[in-house]
Amino acid sequence: MVSIAELARLLGLPFQGEGTHTLTRVSSWDEADASSLIFFDGRGMDSAFPSSLPAGCIIAPKKNLRPGWNALISENPKLDFARAANCLLPRPRGSGARHPSAVVEPGAVVDPEVDLAAGVVVGAGAHVGCGCILHAGVVIGSGCIVGEDCILHPRVLLYPGARLGNRVTVHAGSVIGGDGFGYVSDGRQQIKFPQAGGVVIEEDVEIGCNTTIDRGSLGTTRIGAGAKIDNLVQIAHNVQIGRGVVIAAQTGISGSTVIEDFAVIGGQVGFGDHARVESGAIIGSKAGVLPGKIVRGGEVYWGIPVRPLREYKKLNALFGRLPQMKERIEQLQQQVRRLEEGLKSLSGDGEVRSGNGSPGAS
Amino acid sequence: MVSIAELARLLGLPFQGEGTHTLTRVSSWDEADASSLIFFDGRGMDSAFPSSLPAGCIIAPKKNLRPGWNALISENPKLDFARAANCLLPRPRGSGARHPSAVVEPGAVVDPEVDLAAGVVVGAGAHVGCGCILHAGVVIGSGCIVGEDCILHPRVLLYPGARLGNRVTVHAGSVIGGDGFGYVSDGRQQIKFPQAGGVVIEEDVEIGCNTTIDRGSLGTTRIGAGAKIDNLVQIAHNVQIGRGVVIAAQTGISGSTVIEDFAVIGGQVGFGDHARVESGAIIGSKAGVLPGKIVRGGEVYWGIPVRPLREYKKLNALFGRLPQMKERIEQLQQQVRRLEEGLKSLSGDGEVRSGNGSPGAS
Amino acid sequence: MVSIAELARLLGLPFQGEGTHTLTRVSSWDEADASSLIFFDGRGMDSAFPSSLPAGCIIAPKKNLRPGWNALISENPKLDFARAANCLLPRPRGSGARHPSAVVEPGAVVDPEVDLAAGVVVGAGAHVGCGCILHAGVVIGSGCIVGEDCILHPRVLLYPGARLGNRVTVHAGSVIGGDGFGYVSDGRQQIKFPQAGGVVIEEDVEIGCNTTIDRGSLGTTRIGAGAKIDNLVQIAHNVQIGRGVVIAAQTGISGSTVIEDFAVIGGQVGFGDHARVESGAIIGSKAGVLPGKIVRGGEVYWGIPVRPLREYKKLNALFGRLPQMKERIEQLQQQVRRLEEGLKSLSGDGEVRSGNGSPGAS
Repeated sequence: MVSIAELARLLGLPFQGEGTHTLTRVSSWDEADASSLIFFDGRGMDSAFPSSLPAGCIIAPKKNLRPGWNALISENPKLDFARAANCLLPRPRGSGARHPSAVVEPGAVVDPEVDLAAGVVVGAGAHVGCGCILHAGVVIGSGCIVGEDCILHPRVLLYPGARLGNRVTVHAGSVIGGDGFGYVSDGRQQIKFPQAGGVVIEEDVEIGCNTTIDRGSLGTTRIGAGAKIDNLVQIAHNVQIGRGVVIAAQTGISGSTVIEDFAVIGGQVGFGDHARVESGAIIGSKAGVLPGKIVRGGEVYWGIPVRPLREYKKLNALFGRLPQMKERIEQLQQQVRRLEEGLKSLSGDGEVRSGNGSPGAS
Repeated sequence: MVSIAELARLLGLPFQGEGTHTLTRVSSWDEADASSLIFFDGRGMDSAFPSSLPAGCIIAPKKNLRPGWNALISENPKLDFARAANCLLPRPRGSGARHPSAVVEPGAVVDPEVDLAAGVVVGAGAHVGCGCILHAGVVIGSGCIVGEDCILHPRVLLYPGARLGNRVTVHAGSVIGGDGFGYVSDGRQQIKFPQAGGVVIEEDVEIGCNTTIDRGSLGTTRIGAGAKIDNLVQIAHNVQIGRGVVIAAQTGISGSTVIEDFAVIGGQVGFGDHARVESGAIIGSKAGVLPGKIVRGGEVYWGIPVRPLREYKKLNALFGRLPQMKERIEQLQQQVRRLEEGLKSLSGDGEVRSGNGSPGAS
Repeated sequence: MVSIAELARLLGLPFQGEGTHTLTRVSSWDEADASSLIFFDGRGMDSAFPSSLPAGCIIAPKKNLRPGWNALISENPKLDFARAANCLLPRPRGSGARHPSAVVEPGAVVDPEVDLAAGVVVGAGAHVGCGCILHAGVVIGSGCIVGEDCILHPRVLLYPGARLGNRVTVHAGSVIGGDGFGYVSDGRQQIKFPQAGGVVIEEDVEIGCNTTIDRGSLGTTRIGAGAKIDNLVQIAHNVQIGRGVVIAAQTGISGSTVIEDFAVIGGQVGFGDHARVESGAIIGSKAGVLPGKIVRGGEVYWGIPVRPLREYKKLNALFGRLPQMKERIEQLQQQVRRLEEGLKSLSGDGEVRSGNGSPGAS
């Protein structure tokens, strides 16, 4: 519960209206009431913009506000709405609640201010830092190190030795530190290549549901600080994900590939192994990056294999015009055949000098 | 255990043979015995069709039956076999079995006729309706509402506030109500956009294994009555899935996209955000739908980005003939060069009137 | 802990240096110390190859070794390194540890030498063989048969009746034996087709994290001995996977498809139903195989739909040259128009014999 004036102060924004009015939540316009903060960013409501405010407060640009409304004035309303939401719904912190069914194995060190829900297992020698919340059924493997203020949603699993920085959030069902997929054939069978490396998730990373991040085979798989990873993503052994990288759902990244800082990766993208995406590159959904490929920064890519988006769009448009291209070629063939006949009849000697390629041959 | 006569009555089908013979299961032809019901839909067995029935009863069209066989007579044998299976193997119902390790938190309301297996957790304030079966390790978040006769297979997880209608089935490992993937960059880092909305799964929905369905960011994610969703599917925040929609494995649907009633979506399809698939459209496996795209109903689509199937097949065939197209163009270039030379020599004045485009330029 | 001489004996390799020196682990070059075994396969270190050995022992070809180094001499260092790792880190075996929270239901038979971790559930009538390790939260459905020396990582789930051979490894969160995705429409709703078949995982199979393998609808889904399956893979009802098949992450295989022995399947590949991949075929990542398609053995394939790789690469190169093809066609059209005019002016009678296709029509 925060007053409008206090929220304005926290966000560093001017406000108008009733500063003492208190807000408890963020809402869509449809579901708002007097306790709600809503936002308007100038899009999609030209004619329907209401005359009375359907919420306790709005974040919007000055030009969209009406007198008498409670409002936080912002030229970047969506960002400030997100910031406000983090004030109204602050990240929860563990305070020491322990369900009797939670198991802490010998030698594990769990800070007193950690919540352990039903069925949690913390393995031998693991460390869990102050303020963490381990939801129902979370399994922390032996020797793991979990930083402070992490939230592990139900049934998250860390294989032994995984390390998480502070303020990491992992959503339900995700698995961190599984064996990489590496085998060497001896001609008769697949011999497992050792999967004995580590996995490090740096601070402020958020990982979606049912995602899998394998540990390194010999070295370390690393997810950089502030990276955001969606549901059902696959990250293979020895992958290096840079700071602030964003990866949408169902994308798969093969072994030893490097995604540099602040790259943005769409959904269902596939990366071959040992590829490199340079800082700031953007790769569209469903694209495919070949093994060993270097994707330059500062550009948008699409396609299988990836090409610069502008180029790919042009190619795709031409793909759609293949029937017309085919027709034009056939027409040209006809015209050329007639020209050859015309020239032959003009030259009068029966010898066709202009055509040794038979028009019917192709 | 149902007699053939009783089964015929339940299905509204005529039968022949021994009406009192009892059946306990459905089988493939290979694994059938006297207790089995099998079916034949006229496909794939022309010459090998046996003279004696290898099962207790068959469902088949009249023309395929032999005298003396126990049979249910159906012109739609596969459908009636499925209906019969639902008589022989009726959907199980909870009857109040409670494993001592199941945890029901204060304020949760669990109907007496609910089965709670080992390790189940029902969060504070949740409601679980009559006849539900919660298998081992299911976690129901606080405030969830689960209708009657739902079956949640092991390790299904509902985030707080998720709502399920009656007769919903969720297979093992699926997660319903996780945070949507939404961030707003402030130029330095990704600020989490609030993921405070709801998720509603309507009655008779079936969801496969390890699928993820996020709740709305502000509004509600909704899966319509009777929809069927396969394994490892990703459904993002605020998506609206219509009634009776079928979605095959590993498909991903981005935020706010709408799939209208009775659309059929293949496997590994990807949808950008804010797309709309109209009622009855069919989208083939691995297709890609661009953000904001409207896919019209009553047609089959394929490709990345999607096009009507007929069109896509033609384009794909032409794609396979690109080498021939290239060859024809080269041949035409040669023919035209010779024509230009022939014409020049005929006109006799050294001036090539017919060609200002240099043939060697391209 | 193994001495170099002993390791040489176990691997059948010659060695040089201090045979009594003991090794405890395999390492990357960066992380090696005196207890480490490392390997060098001649790639990627031409100039930087060090003069002193940064590890307790190296596996490398004779030509790369320096005098005085402890070394196992191998012409196939990566394979022998993998074999050595399996000596240094032998597969763990259950020895009878039972967490008090593990539940063994009546009628289940668990060998005394099985480890059951916290929260494990073994269903009624299941059999678990000698030497198995069931990690935290594993759920074995009723009537399952698990062979000897299997390792089921945390939260693996077997639906009732699933059968695993000896030495099967299943990584965290995978689900084996879920219902296949089969419905028959009655015009109003989807009627569930019976999913009453079985699933058999043969010996020495390894399955990654959060993968889903459905049981047969009526027959049996089968994964052949020694097959290796990565994370987040979907295998549908009645699929037959041959011996030694390798399937990378996020690939999906539709119902009744057959992958014959020793085929290799990349990541994010999709298979329609009733397809067949012949023994030894290799299918590149992100490829798509149409329903019913037969993919011949002994070749590499790529593309959607798949084509032989050589052919696909050529087509893809031509796709990238569509703008040039279009330009050449336009140039040809211009040249032909000029030729037609030239011929007409030469023939002098105003009748264009060579062109009845209007050049502007296309």
